[in-house]
Amino acid sequence: MTGWIAIAGLGPGDEALITPEVTAALAQATDIVGYTPYVARVAPREGLTLHASDNRVELERAAHALAMAAAGQRVIVVSSGDPGVFAMAAAVFEALEQGPTEWRDLDIRVLPGITAMLAASARAGAPLGHDFCAINLSDNLKPWGLIERRLRLAAEADFAMAFYNPRSKARPKGFGRVLDILREACGGERLILFARAVCTPQEALHIVPLRDATPDMADMRTMVIVGSSQTRLIDRSGTPILYTPRRHDPASP
Amino acid sequence: MTGWIAIAGLGPGDEALITPEVTAALAQATDIVGYTPYVARVAPREGLTLHASDNRVELERAAHALAMAAAGQRVIVVSSGDPGVFAMAAAVFEALEQGPTEWRDLDIRVLPGITAMLAASARAGAPLGHDFCAINLSDNLKPWGLIERRLRLAAEADFAMAFYNPRSKARPKGFGRVLDILREACGGERLILFARAVCTPQEALHIVPLRDATPDMADMRTMVIVGSSQTRLIDRSGTPILYTPRRHDPASP
Repeated sequence: MTGWIAIAGLGPGDEALITPEVTAALAQATDIVGYTPYVARVAPREGLTLHASDNRVELERAAHALAMAAAGQRVIVVSSGDPGVFAMAAAVFEALEQGPTEWRDLDIRVLPGITAMLAASARAGAPLGHDFCAINLSDNLKPWGLIERRLRLAAEADFAMAFYNPRSKARPKGFGRVLDILREACGGERLILFARAVCTPQEALHIVPLRDATPDMADMRTMVIVGSSQTRLIDRSGTPILYTPRRHDPASP
Repeated sequence: MTGWIAIAGLGPGDEALITPEVTAALAQATDIVGYTPYVARVAPREGLTLHASDNRVELERAAHALAMAAAGQRVIVVSSGDPGVFAMAAAVFEALEQGPTEWRDLDIRVLPGITAMLAASARAGAPLGHDFCAINLSDNLKPWGLIERRLRLAAEADFAMAFYNPRSKARPKGFGRVLDILREACGGERLILFARAVCTPQEALHIVPLRDATPDMADMRTMVIVGSSQTRLIDRSGTPILYTPRRHDPASP
C-alpha cells in the first residue's frame, strides 16, 4: 500500500460548503488528524481512525500525520475553512522541512476549502469586492509590533481588511488596541463587520461604524472585516447589504 | 412563484471544487446569467435558460439578472472562483443600488466558491500561509497610480501578494511595470509563482525569483502570487513546494 497525506479544508461549518474533492478524499482515508472540533466534523466509519488533538500542537500533529503517511497510511489533516489560510498547510510544510528527508517524497496534496473571510463576505454582501488584505491578529507567532505596522500600512493602502483570530482568552487586550489604531487611521465612520460562527446555526452578523465598535463584539469564532473608504451599506427591509464597489473613486470619501 | 437571485462561485474550473450548495442552487434555477465561458460550465436542461454575455458588460448583465428575479424567475449569476473576489457580487450590488427601489426587497444570496488565489496556493503548497493581500492589477476601474501605491505599501508591510488579472491584450504594459516595482521594493531573490489555468487540464505552475520574472509569464488565465520575505521552497523530487511559514522571523532575511 502506498501512503499519502492530504491537508483538507472543511469550509466554515455547513456541510453544503465542503467540496466534492474533500468528500472523496475523506472516503479514501485511513486516518484523520486535526484539532478536536474539526475532527468531530468527520463521520466515523469502519477502517477510519480519528486522531483528535488540542489547539497549539500544530507541529506535533503535522509530524504525526507525516509519519503515518510515510508508514503507508492514507492520512488527511483537516482544517476548518481553507487549509492554506492561517491553518494546517503551513504547519505540515514546516514539519516536512524539519523532518527526515524521505518524507519529502511523499504524495502530499492541499485540498482547498471555503475560508472564513469569503463565507463571512458572502453572508454580508461583498465587502471584499475590491483589493483587500488578510491579517491574523494573533501574536503567538509574530511580534505585536508587526501587526500594528501592517494595520497602519493596510489603512494607508485603503485595503479592506479581513481579520482572523481577533481575540481569545489568552489575548484579551490586543483587539481593543487594533480598534484604536483603525479608528485613528480610518476614522470613526468606517464600517466594520463582526461575523460570528458564519454558516452554522449560531451565525450572527453585526455591522457598525468603527466609532461604535467594542472589543467584546469579537471572540474566537468571529471573523472581522473592516471596509475600505469605499465600502458602504445598501439599506433594505431586513439586514442591509455591505459591499465594496469594483470602482475606486479617488474623490470619495 | 417567488423569484430570487443568487450570485454563485463555480470555483477555478474543476467540477470537484464546486460546492454542493452551488450545485443545489443550479438545480433550482430557471435562468443562468454570466460571462460566456462561465455559463458554458453549466449543463443545459429543460426549464433552464442560459444567458451568456460578453466580458466588460457586468453592470448590464447584473441589471438583467435583477430584473428577471423581480419578474419572478429564479436567477443565478455565475462567476468563476468566488463571486465576492473581483467578480460579479459587487457588480450586482452596484446595479441594485442604481436600480428601482423594489429590487432591494428581492431574495438575494451570495454563494461562495474556491477563489483562484486559494486554488493556486493549494497547488503550489501554502504561499498564503501568513498575512497576505489580494490586488486586482487591472486599471479599468481604478487609477494606475493607486495600484503602484498599493504594491509599495504591501511590500513595506511584507505581505505575500496575490494578483488577479495581471495582464490582458488591452493592458500589455502594466505587468512589466509591476515586476519592476516589486524587484525594487522586494529584491531580486523574492519568489514569484505563475499559476496558469489552475485545476484545469491546462494547468501549469512556474516558480522563479523576481530577478528572472518576465511579463510574458502571465496572461489572462494566470494567477500570480509573490511571496513575503519569509516565503521559501522545499526541494524534493518533482516540483518543489512553495510555502510561507506561520512564524514571522524579524531577523530574516
